[in-house]
Amino acid sequence: MYYAVPVSCFCQQKLNLGAMNIGVDMMGGDFAPLEAVKGLKSYLSRQDGNATLFCFGDEQTVKPLLEDHGLSGKNIVTVHAPEVIGMDEHPTKALKEKQQSSIAIGFYMLATGKIDAFISAGNTGAMLVGSLYSIRAIPGVLRPAISTVVPKLNGGTGILLDVGLNADCKPEHLNQFAILGSLYAKDIFGIENPKVGLLNVGEEEGKGNILAQSTYPLLKENSHINFVGNVEGRDLLMEKADVIVCEGFTGNIILKMAESFYDVAQNRGLNDDYLERFHYENYGGTPVLGVAKPVIIGHGISKASAFANMITLGEKMITSNIINEMVDSFAETAKV
Amino acid sequence: MYYAVPVSCFCQQKLNLGAMNIGVDMMGGDFAPLEAVKGLKSYLSRQDGNATLFCFGDEQTVKPLLEDHGLSGKNIVTVHAPEVIGMDEHPTKALKEKQQSSIAIGFYMLATGKIDAFISAGNTGAMLVGSLYSIRAIPGVLRPAISTVVPKLNGGTGILLDVGLNADCKPEHLNQFAILGSLYAKDIFGIENPKVGLLNVGEEEGKGNILAQSTYPLLKENSHINFVGNVEGRDLLMEKADVIVCEGFTGNIILKMAESFYDVAQNRGLNDDYLERFHYENYGGTPVLGVAKPVIIGHGISKASAFANMITLGEKMITSNIINEMVDSFAETAKV
Repeated sequence: MYYAVPVSCFCQQKLNLGAMNIGVDMMGGDFAPLEAVKGLKSYLSRQDGNATLFCFGDEQTVKPLLEDHGLSGKNIVTVHAPEVIGMDEHPTKALKEKQQSSIAIGFYMLATGKIDAFISAGNTGAMLVGSLYSIRAIPGVLRPAISTVVPKLNGGTGILLDVGLNADCKPEHLNQFAILGSLYAKDIFGIENPKVGLLNVGEEEGKGNILAQSTYPLLKENSHINFVGNVEGRDLLMEKADVIVCEGFTGNIILKMAESFYDVAQNRGLNDDYLERFHYENYGGTPVLGVAKPVIIGHGISKASAFANMITLGEKMITSNIINEMVDSFAETAKV
Repeated sequence: MYYAVPVSCFCQQKLNLGAMNIGVDMMGGDFAPLEAVKGLKSYLSRQDGNATLFCFGDEQTVKPLLEDHGLSGKNIVTVHAPEVIGMDEHPTKALKEKQQSSIAIGFYMLATGKIDAFISAGNTGAMLVGSLYSIRAIPGVLRPAISTVVPKLNGGTGILLDVGLNADCKPEHLNQFAILGSLYAKDIFGIENPKVGLLNVGEEEGKGNILAQSTYPLLKENSHINFVGNVEGRDLLMEKADVIVCEGFTGNIILKMAESFYDVAQNRGLNDDYLERFHYENYGGTPVLGVAKPVIIGHGISKASAFANMITLGEKMITSNIINEMVDSFAETAKV
């Protein structure tokens, strides 16, 4: 309701309504807009970088910068957004008061179908509020979640969710995360019939806190997923499960701890291909899973490659048709 | 109640009632009894290794092994324990049925004051059950906890608790963990006025799940501790806090994940002094904090140096008088 942006703000633009339109908040993140611009360039230089990019930001700042980087073709559309939501602003308040901000305009365009995916490395809270209240959850999804990529020691890739959107969860939330994560692992990582694990303190059924104990039977009976049982902290990086579900409190601690281990390795001068995969730049950002359109939130310290990777992820989410699969899956679940 | 071991089982021994008697389960752990014997030898060879060691195990197996390693002096007392509790046995059932086991006898001797500390790398569940039901909690302590050493990047050492004894906690439990952890950091690590942090998903008061939100005000008002606020997953290895409290679910995941990172580093051939500090052998085992006598539980894969370090820790817990300090602290808390 907060994002009723006057149509005038963008309808004067010569919109390129291509097959795939991805919106990027040019003002979000510690290194915006320069690194966002570089990221766009990097994305477009990729062989398969063929989306039209909608750039939300202050036109006077962004346009010359785009041109300086040779980005002025038909793949680039600048949408003037004179306001910026700061990294430390109160999300709901800022979105309400700054309807001309790059984030508010981005969500408006996503909600109205002008773009197919929206990406920002800006105020995380505002991105979440926008996702939940402007885009909204897929019917049947009780709690959208955010996730993190888990680099597996064997070279594979897993997903852990929730990593911070839902600090307190009920068993049925974790059961839904398992479905969302499974579709993501299949469509984005290309894992057929991904193995789902419940993060827990022991291997056997019956182990864990009340939440884990109550979630286990739900996962066991969920015919939409391939549940393989409990996984412990030591199994996270191993092959045991592709999709690992937990409440957002523990997930967030794990995410930040893993980032910290990467920083420590850097600090200690340890160069290693596997550890390098923990660098957030490699995966870019986290999608908000369970909302009705692709929204990707980047790290505040995102640089060019993170932006490029987020756009590629947005493209993958659009072409894979993952959102419709989620819609179908939850419509089916609701019938049962 | 389960540990009413017949006095005959040890009163025939010529007991060495020295100033400090530490009991060691010789049959516990994957590499028992050989690594336990080597650990004893390593401990006694240290300049300050001056406790009398009570060795619980099958005499016919343990005694010759001790003698083979030159361990037959007045510092060594063998106590015959013909039974062994296996690593996978049900803790309560095993302790009830195997009263002649090394763990049952160890707890009996600790409860009756024949030894001052008890150490085992055997069945963790049995060690916990023994701690809670044979030794019991210090009056006023609602929930004893287990902890892990946190190697800080700056060279210091912190403590994280609970790491698995209490999968579900209430705010008052975490508030008590803060007191137990602070005394441990002071007495064992020598940190004056240790900084206490609440593990959380954000820095500001009000962040987190319901448990963290409700715990924050208790910690803030607790005059027995030096509360410094929330700490995030990324702060664990940093200087922000010496004592970090959380419920045992998240703590256990963190502990096992940190162990896994160490294993990964080994697997990748990364040699680093700091990462080496994550090796469990360096700290040996975890004390059960909040019970009325020093009990130390070792990793099932403990080798000689882990045993030696556990004995040294037991010695430190005895000489530092930490248990009495805990008793006094909780007696004082109860008065308020």
